[in-house]
Amino acid sequence: MSTDPRWDHLLLDVGLATLLDNGKPYGAVEHGAIGWRDGRIAFAGPMAELAGEPHALARHVESLPGAWVTPGLIDCHTHLVFGGERAQEFEQRLEGASYEEIARAGGGIVSSVRATRAASEDELLRQSLPRAKALLADGVTTLEIKSGYGLEPDTERRMLRVARRIGEELGVAVRTSFLGLHALPPEYAGRRDEYVALVCDIMLPSLAEEELVDAVDAFCEGIGFTAEETRRLFDKATSLGLPVKLHAEQLSDLGGTALVAGYGGLSADHLEWTSDEGVRAMAEAGTVAVLLPGAYYALRDTRPPPIEAFRRHGVDMAVATDLNPGTSPLLSLRMAMGMACTLFRLTPEEALRGATVNAARALGLEDDRGTLAAGKRADLAVWNLRHLPELCYWIGGNLLRESWLGGERVVLSA
Amino acid sequence: MSTDPRWDHLLLDVGLATLLDNGKPYGAVEHGAIGWRDGRIAFAGPMAELAGEPHALARHVESLPGAWVTPGLIDCHTHLVFGGERAQEFEQRLEGASYEEIARAGGGIVSSVRATRAASEDELLRQSLPRAKALLADGVTTLEIKSGYGLEPDTERRMLRVARRIGEELGVAVRTSFLGLHALPPEYAGRRDEYVALVCDIMLPSLAEEELVDAVDAFCEGIGFTAEETRRLFDKATSLGLPVKLHAEQLSDLGGTALVAGYGGLSADHLEWTSDEGVRAMAEAGTVAVLLPGAYYALRDTRPPPIEAFRRHGVDMAVATDLNPGTSPLLSLRMAMGMACTLFRLTPEEALRGATVNAARALGLEDDRGTLAAGKRADLAVWNLRHLPELCYWIGGNLLRESWLGGERVVLSA
Ligand SMILES: [Zn+2]
Ligand SMILES: [Zn+2]
Repeated sequence: MSTDPRWDHLLLDVGLATLLDNGKPYGAVEHGAIGWRDGRIAFAGPMAELAGEPHALARHVESLPGAWVTPGLIDCHTHLVFGGERAQEFEQRLEGASYEEIARAGGGIVSSVRATRAASEDELLRQSLPRAKALLADGVTTLEIKSGYGLEPDTERRMLRVARRIGEELGVAVRTSFLGLHALPPEYAGRRDEYVALVCDIMLPSLAEEELVDAVDAFCEGIGFTAEETRRLFDKATSLGLPVKLHAEQLSDLGGTALVAGYGGLSADHLEWTSDEGVRAMAEAGTVAVLLPGAYYALRDTRPPPIEAFRRHGVDMAVATDLNPGTSPLLSLRMAMGMACTLFRLTPEEALRGATVNAARALGLEDDRGTLAAGKRADLAVWNLRHLPELCYWIGGNLLRESWLGGERVVLSA
Repeated sequence: MSTDPRWDHLLLDVGLATLLDNGKPYGAVEHGAIGWRDGRIAFAGPMAELAGEPHALARHVESLPGAWVTPGLIDCHTHLVFGGERAQEFEQRLEGASYEEIARAGGGIVSSVRATRAASEDELLRQSLPRAKALLADGVTTLEIKSGYGLEPDTERRMLRVARRIGEELGVAVRTSFLGLHALPPEYAGRRDEYVALVCDIMLPSLAEEELVDAVDAFCEGIGFTAEETRRLFDKATSLGLPVKLHAEQLSDLGGTALVAGYGGLSADHLEWTSDEGVRAMAEAGTVAVLLPGAYYALRDTRPPPIEAFRRHGVDMAVATDLNPGTSPLLSLRMAMGMACTLFRLTPEEALRGATVNAARALGLEDDRGTLAAGKRADLAVWNLRHLPELCYWIGGNLLRESWLGGERVVLSA
């Protein structure tokens, strides 16, 4: 804490996308200013409402005409800690190999499990850090990271420790999710119950004890785990006081959406096959719909999630990268926002809310960040834009001018 | 020219994607070295074939283990000089406005024409330069830029001059295409013939005289110009000794592919509706098929170009961004390569050839660049990759380590 009563920093002559309800799209303030102190926003509003001469208000003052400030982006669904990548499998598929041939050759998720198990903690950090940096370079200041390529106690722990270390290394806020029920590990073939018991009764309690688990996730799908198995996990999570979320209805409708809503879950994610009943259950529980257009794109899916139903029932929609080596090698949340517009027909404002205020809600952080309001964490992305929809309109390119994390300027080395 | 007989620079311990026919995918050399002198490649091959101690061979020597070198990428189809952008129109469409409503509100291509006409040469350069830099930041070293948002002599000239100035400013090779037959300007409604005459008889000869035109292009489409009008333009181009290319068969089959092949055209571009007859004509003429997946993606098109037919008939395929404000606001050629794989099912090797050697051919530059061979221009992209297909696999992110343009390191200021 500084003894100087002034704010630490003040940006002048910027547009603000506050995402607050001020009667304007994006909660926009066209001729705005934003100041912060001790990591928290002290003022975000019209230039004309600044209560004094800028240098009397803040120790550092910068004018950035032509820039727009949004809340720092929040990627609320990633699997970015993993060993290896699957680019060669991507190539084999395009050269005509079938999924079966690739699986027989040791490809698929099993190959990521193998590479992740084989990597030491330092090696896993070394491989994963550039992916986290890529997200930060495109405006992300908070990100979620899941386990789920270990599928045995030591490697699941290592993944979650690496997730924590990424947060420390980059000074970025990382929220971890334990995804032990991601896939049945090959050595448990024919012994599903034993694996589910290991996850629920041994792995989850001990990882939670080590404070490595901020939330509990599962892959509820024909090729993943049943609703019954998911319930067993969620009961355990609830007894440990941990919030839940779920990969639900990506490939079929197993009722996972209603299930996770029934537990008051933070979010249900994917949702291409979600029924109206599922949507209503989410609305009632306040469970956020996390849209993952990267996987939809990469898998050439043709059935988008029921966006209209989410709107009609008032379900908050978030947008995330799903960054993972198999189905979404997507290193840009802004690109995910653009895909959400182009492929799912979100408006650019919905996409920006999806990567800020609604993503914060999907992580249980809505009181702390996701809007530009006094008291919120000073996590900011500053963009070179004329108009806010450019965030979703341009495909690729680098629109980020700078970003701030808890009031500190983010410096990214290559 | 240096008096030192040694090469200027030598990179050691790199992978090389030479794209030459050495019996390996990508013409790859796994443990390679590449050296150049006076802007031209002097050696590209296995480390083991270096004819001496590195410092005896070159003035500067660098070892880059873990890096892959490809030819600098070539974007052979862009419309990157324009005034304004159309992000607000993008937003209006997603908010439910019809194309008609947008057109009535002054949107569509007409709005780009208006903004481009209103911009001075310096202003147009100021607006366009960041787009060219975005392409360079992702590995591009040669790019094509079209006119076509002026549709009257002064602005078409200004666009082409700005294209040339971008080349000088960035030290990058720019090839210009005159696209006067892009759209019928509103002031010529009902007077098509007069406009076509203006383009063919006044604009083209005078712009060619000023050496602003490297090739001649047209938009042959129901909403553009007829085959007859295109022929009139191409006859004039031929009489001036200028090569031709064509926007053909994007929305319908007007026979443009066969038409441009009949003129020995450099390329036919888009091609979603190209018939087998068109493909055969291209094969015979050696006309390159330029694939533009960015527009296909942004327009949510569902009919890909006939890739199998191009392969069967041995038509070379190039991949380009089509960077333009209306249908392809795509600032990354590597992203276009990835889209060509995911949406059109090109292999990553085909996509890389499409953005190097075949793109060079589409610009008539195949003798000068596009492969890593001794004598070729030292235009190189150096990537942080384990495997070459990662170029197409990762969506977004920054994989480029550095690039070299005619033997000079590219330095990009923001
Ligand atoms: Zn996921
Ligand atoms: Zn075009």
